[in-house]
Amino acid sequence: MTKIALTPLAQSLPASVPFVGPEAQERQMGRPFKARLGANESAFGPSPKAIAAMQKAAAETWMYPDPESYELKHALAAHCGIAADSIMVGEGIDGLLALVVRAYISIGDRVVTSAGAYPTFNYHVAGFGGALHSVPYNGDFEDPDALLAKAGEVGAKLIYLANPDNPMGSWHQADVISDMISRLPDGCLLVLDEAYVDLAPEGTAPAIDTAAENVIRMRTFSKAYGMAGARVGFAIATPEIINGFDKVRNHFGMSRTSQIGALASLQDDGWLAHIRAEVDASRQKIGQIASDNGLTALPSAANFVAIDCGRDGGFARAVLGRLVEDGIFVRMPFVAPQDRCIRVSCGPEDQMQRFADALPLALAHAHENLG
Amino acid sequence: MTKIALTPLAQSLPASVPFVGPEAQERQMGRPFKARLGANESAFGPSPKAIAAMQKAAAETWMYPDPESYELKHALAAHCGIAADSIMVGEGIDGLLALVVRAYISIGDRVVTSAGAYPTFNYHVAGFGGALHSVPYNGDFEDPDALLAKAGEVGAKLIYLANPDNPMGSWHQADVISDMISRLPDGCLLVLDEAYVDLAPEGTAPAIDTAAENVIRMRTFSKAYGMAGARVGFAIATPEIINGFDKVRNHFGMSRTSQIGALASLQDDGWLAHIRAEVDASRQKIGQIASDNGLTALPSAANFVAIDCGRDGGFARAVLGRLVEDGIFVRMPFVAPQDRCIRVSCGPEDQMQRFADALPLALAHAHENLG
Repeated sequence: MTKIALTPLAQSLPASVPFVGPEAQERQMGRPFKARLGANESAFGPSPKAIAAMQKAAAETWMYPDPESYELKHALAAHCGIAADSIMVGEGIDGLLALVVRAYISIGDRVVTSAGAYPTFNYHVAGFGGALHSVPYNGDFEDPDALLAKAGEVGAKLIYLANPDNPMGSWHQADVISDMISRLPDGCLLVLDEAYVDLAPEGTAPAIDTAAENVIRMRTFSKAYGMAGARVGFAIATPEIINGFDKVRNHFGMSRTSQIGALASLQDDGWLAHIRAEVDASRQKIGQIASDNGLTALPSAANFVAIDCGRDGGFARAVLGRLVEDGIFVRMPFVAPQDRCIRVSCGPEDQMQRFADALPLALAHAHENLG
Repeated sequence: MTKIALTPLAQSLPASVPFVGPEAQERQMGRPFKARLGANESAFGPSPKAIAAMQKAAAETWMYPDPESYELKHALAAHCGIAADSIMVGEGIDGLLALVVRAYISIGDRVVTSAGAYPTFNYHVAGFGGALHSVPYNGDFEDPDALLAKAGEVGAKLIYLANPDNPMGSWHQADVISDMISRLPDGCLLVLDEAYVDLAPEGTAPAIDTAAENVIRMRTFSKAYGMAGARVGFAIATPEIINGFDKVRNHFGMSRTSQIGALASLQDDGWLAHIRAEVDASRQKIGQIASDNGLTALPSAANFVAIDCGRDGGFARAVLGRLVEDGIFVRMPFVAPQDRCIRVSCGPEDQMQRFADALPLALAHAHENLG
């Protein structure tokens, strides 16, 4: 009996996890984290109306989800002021990114991103055999000009850009993004990840144009809406691009309770303003904690703040290692020179306080060990 | 500006939905179904313990799921009496089938199934460019000999077999399946869909052998456990096969609440026995309704019963059409001669009564129209 062979493509891939979950770290440490500030979850929680709706829906879990996510899709369309045929609901932005790559990238097709941007996108590109090219950040900003130049040079079919950016929290004004879209090479699709845009200043998101044939925008209930565990994202594009999803998606992949929770969350009018205020206060608090420790917090349009630890990646890694050891779950950028920072998610006061208590010790530890 | 081109493979695919959801039918009719007996959901509901656990978890939806589904995976391992590294948890069997096809099928690779078996599997095979070959049922049974012969003939990498079968409810004894596994061609993997096995007689499932390199078994919380809306399935195979999933899956694709609900459901010791009794009673009830109307119910090892309407597919379609019009959601096999049947899911007494009330009228209608 010969073994069953994976496809040549699958054989070429590592068995990898783009992010190790905090639960795995907790199992390894043998104790839970005291503060969960590493995954840009919203510890402010979901809307009470979403919680109530999900609790009510629990007994009806015996029913399959509506494969069209009809009600949620139409509510999103009304919310965005566009037609429902320009929206696809999927299992988080991660799931939608996989489908976009699958729909557009054959083995060897070129894709462009920024070095140090979202690794899960890179994972999917590799997973479908795409050839990934990256350009450096410009300062702490993703660089539209460099992305466009590289895409033209290699003949890329996809460009990935997050606005606001993760992991740095930096952002471009809407007109910079609009200008980028207008300059995309022929046959190149911009994957515009707007996971954090609900938390950004006015003027960050370009107006939605559902006739634009060269851009697909990704949004989520995981961040501002505080529903990361529900896995609900949505894509906005032309009806033709949206139609393409129905060729490749897992039609019954959405949790029914998640659909219902996301809908209730969207219908809770005051929730987004409440969370924007909480996140803004928390960003300021993180900034204060940083400066209290002689560090600089970078400006952020997201629900996290990158803190410049003032030295190199080795130093920031030592700080981060000690924070994790002390029960504070945080993460950091993967690539220099952004890896001089640690990335701290916004959260309620008690979580901020635990981080504030742990940071001086972590810095002292890093200084001791690295001189 | 040229349009962005889908991959040649994606261009070749229709934008399709393997199953139109009952919600779409309801929207079209402008009224809800009176009985929901078409998708083999379990209207008996999930375990009250699962409901309570999901309700409790709702407020924690802000946290991402554990990408390893560690606790659920280990509980399943204990439940099955195997090691956890032989289990992969995923977004329902549908999601796991997509990943298996993706991992093993390159464009043009051959796959074998039965004509009229699970269309979602076929959808995924087409979606990754596999060449699907099918063999007829033998009577109302999937035919292991014919599947093996065809697989040998075309050099198939995958064979799909459901035991118990959907849509007929028929089943093979464990030794028939074991014998089939022992005769698989070299380099061919059996995808053994056991979605309904929790409801089958003792002796239907072969003992689990996690050293068997040529079989992957699929199970689910959607049927006996009554959690179709949660999208939780799991695969059982060698650690090497299971490892392959980590190359291609969406690591954060599971709903956190679904993970928690499935775990609570599994830990509710009495639940499965309770549901087996309910399903058994309901199968008998459907048999009684059939014979009250001069029809024959086929023996079933699943939570549904195929009723032979006694004539051809056209007649059964007329019966089904009228049932749907009367607010009874049922489905039927796609392929002759199995399409002489309608397929009715088990359910509680009130739903059975509504079906019993509607069937005579639907039969009369079909006789009137088709003579």
